[in-house]
Amino acid sequence: MALVTEMLASIEENLITQVDRMSSLPFLAGLQAMIRYHMGWEGQGAGTDARGKRIRPLLVTLCAAASGGNWQDSLPLASAVELVHNFSLLHDDIEDNSPLRRGRPTVWKLWGVPQAINTGDAIFTLAHLASLDVSESIASQNSRQICYVLVKTCLELTQGQYLDISFEDESEIDIEAYWQMIGAKTAALISCCCELGALAGQAPQEVRQSYTQFGRYLGLAFQALDDILGIWGDEALTGKSAASDLVTGKKTLPVLYGLSRKGEFFTRWKNGLVNPEEIPSAIHILTEEGARAYAQHHADHLTNLALEYLAQAKPMGEAGKELENLALTLLQRKN
Amino acid sequence: MALVTEMLASIEENLITQVDRMSSLPFLAGLQAMIRYHMGWEGQGAGTDARGKRIRPLLVTLCAAASGGNWQDSLPLASAVELVHNFSLLHDDIEDNSPLRRGRPTVWKLWGVPQAINTGDAIFTLAHLASLDVSESIASQNSRQICYVLVKTCLELTQGQYLDISFEDESEIDIEAYWQMIGAKTAALISCCCELGALAGQAPQEVRQSYTQFGRYLGLAFQALDDILGIWGDEALTGKSAASDLVTGKKTLPVLYGLSRKGEFFTRWKNGLVNPEEIPSAIHILTEEGARAYAQHHADHLTNLALEYLAQAKPMGEAGKELENLALTLLQRKN
Repeated sequence: MALVTEMLASIEENLITQVDRMSSLPFLAGLQAMIRYHMGWEGQGAGTDARGKRIRPLLVTLCAAASGGNWQDSLPLASAVELVHNFSLLHDDIEDNSPLRRGRPTVWKLWGVPQAINTGDAIFTLAHLASLDVSESIASQNSRQICYVLVKTCLELTQGQYLDISFEDESEIDIEAYWQMIGAKTAALISCCCELGALAGQAPQEVRQSYTQFGRYLGLAFQALDDILGIWGDEALTGKSAASDLVTGKKTLPVLYGLSRKGEFFTRWKNGLVNPEEIPSAIHILTEEGARAYAQHHADHLTNLALEYLAQAKPMGEAGKELENLALTLLQRKN
Repeated sequence: MALVTEMLASIEENLITQVDRMSSLPFLAGLQAMIRYHMGWEGQGAGTDARGKRIRPLLVTLCAAASGGNWQDSLPLASAVELVHNFSLLHDDIEDNSPLRRGRPTVWKLWGVPQAINTGDAIFTLAHLASLDVSESIASQNSRQICYVLVKTCLELTQGQYLDISFEDESEIDIEAYWQMIGAKTAALISCCCELGALAGQAPQEVRQSYTQFGRYLGLAFQALDDILGIWGDEALTGKSAASDLVTGKKTLPVLYGLSRKGEFFTRWKNGLVNPEEIPSAIHILTEEGARAYAQHHADHLTNLALEYLAQAKPMGEAGKELENLALTLLQRKN
């Protein structure tokens, strides 16, 4: 664990350095304060709980080290992906009208939509600036490729978000479209983390491709598992109230499968939001109609693919072990 | 004029190519449609009037050619700055709650705020992707520098926008802060156009710096002149109703100067928005208190600096002449 702890500390330090490249001239202090609030460094409720787990940047540094590179060299890229992630959360919060993020009021709630949109744009820009901050030795080989991988991923994020917003107004969503959406909205950035790590590690192309595919299936499997836990999860383990996704009417994988069966679940869903007291029966119907088995089958298949690609990448040393640990934890093959 | 016409046609063509890199898969067609609508290519009211004058990309190609390069090589950078400009307009329209842009309903009016925010993010991303699309000969020399110049400018745009939004809620704005705002919000991108053109033209560093400074003062002078025309402009020439900035309460340079005098104009302004029938007297007071002279003095000074830096850059050939023409037209030294 010492390596991961050291990496997380360095990631936090580099993130602060990247954000501080935003001028702190007195008349811009307000902009910096909004960014630092959103990053969990200052304001009401600041602290580790407000920061998220920094899993994406950790994937960058672990993949860089596990592919034979110096993980410190990958820190600006680790910051870049975490800044992209945070930009997308900030804009998502406005788009979803969410008043809270990690238990704290969202930026738009505190400072209004106009400043929040612009603060998201600033964080997005800082991400691109961070990606240009790699050392000369990496840049001379891979600078354009690094920028391209990051920007291409951002394009996928906007495509995924477009689908996600569109789905809200649609009563029926094709399961294929849902996979496209989570592929673009969740898996693309996880995959980008692993690819950037391998690029920073200057891994040979086929190794880099294995890391990229590992990240992609890790992201897809993680989302499928998250969707299952959103309905059948144990509140004590997930920290979310069980079946909360059914109460909010979220169109997750099991729900879409259930709807596609056009059976009892479909009929119930069309009659409006499920009340908390109806949850046990709704879950029972979903299970009976095969939604859990469908989602679990896909989660297992995607998990196996992720682990196969990781094995193919032959991750090296302590970082390689920690990378496997992280993957197994995220994929719930390990506690 | 043949050269400028040819450049504008090529710019439009390259812009379409850059936007088409956004997947047009059936389930993403809606996202592409919003982008193409905002760019003025499709939907109600599409056409040249809906596109703006494309002055920024034209500055890129003209500076590339005038500094001795092949202007065709600079087309991806021309597209990049126009996409950045259009991204910022789209988000500004949401932030300012503007229902119309160039006489057409804005994207947020037609598709809602969530899709509009995300569409702006997609255009921003396409801009960065375009900047990576330069030919190998330019990229091998300058790829990282090109990305850096563009991203640095985007950071300034968000800083300028932060100040602009903040100013709305402030009753008194320091004139110095106003210069900072237009420097970041308007001049930075114009300056970036000229710098990227010179970078594409592979101009020597001191020539590139002259183009960069030319762009900066061109942007500042243009904004100062626009502020003067917003109050003293001839409607027939500007197409805007004269003194419209006074009616809307816009805090432009002459208004801020007038307020700083703490005289009759200051007292009137504090009593609420100026009615259309009061305009002549309000303009008279502003003129008497020296606001027009102050703004004109600065506009003249900035214009002279812009033209001096342009002369220092020694723009070459037909493109050089057209660049001077464009500058003189924008700076109203020529009709």
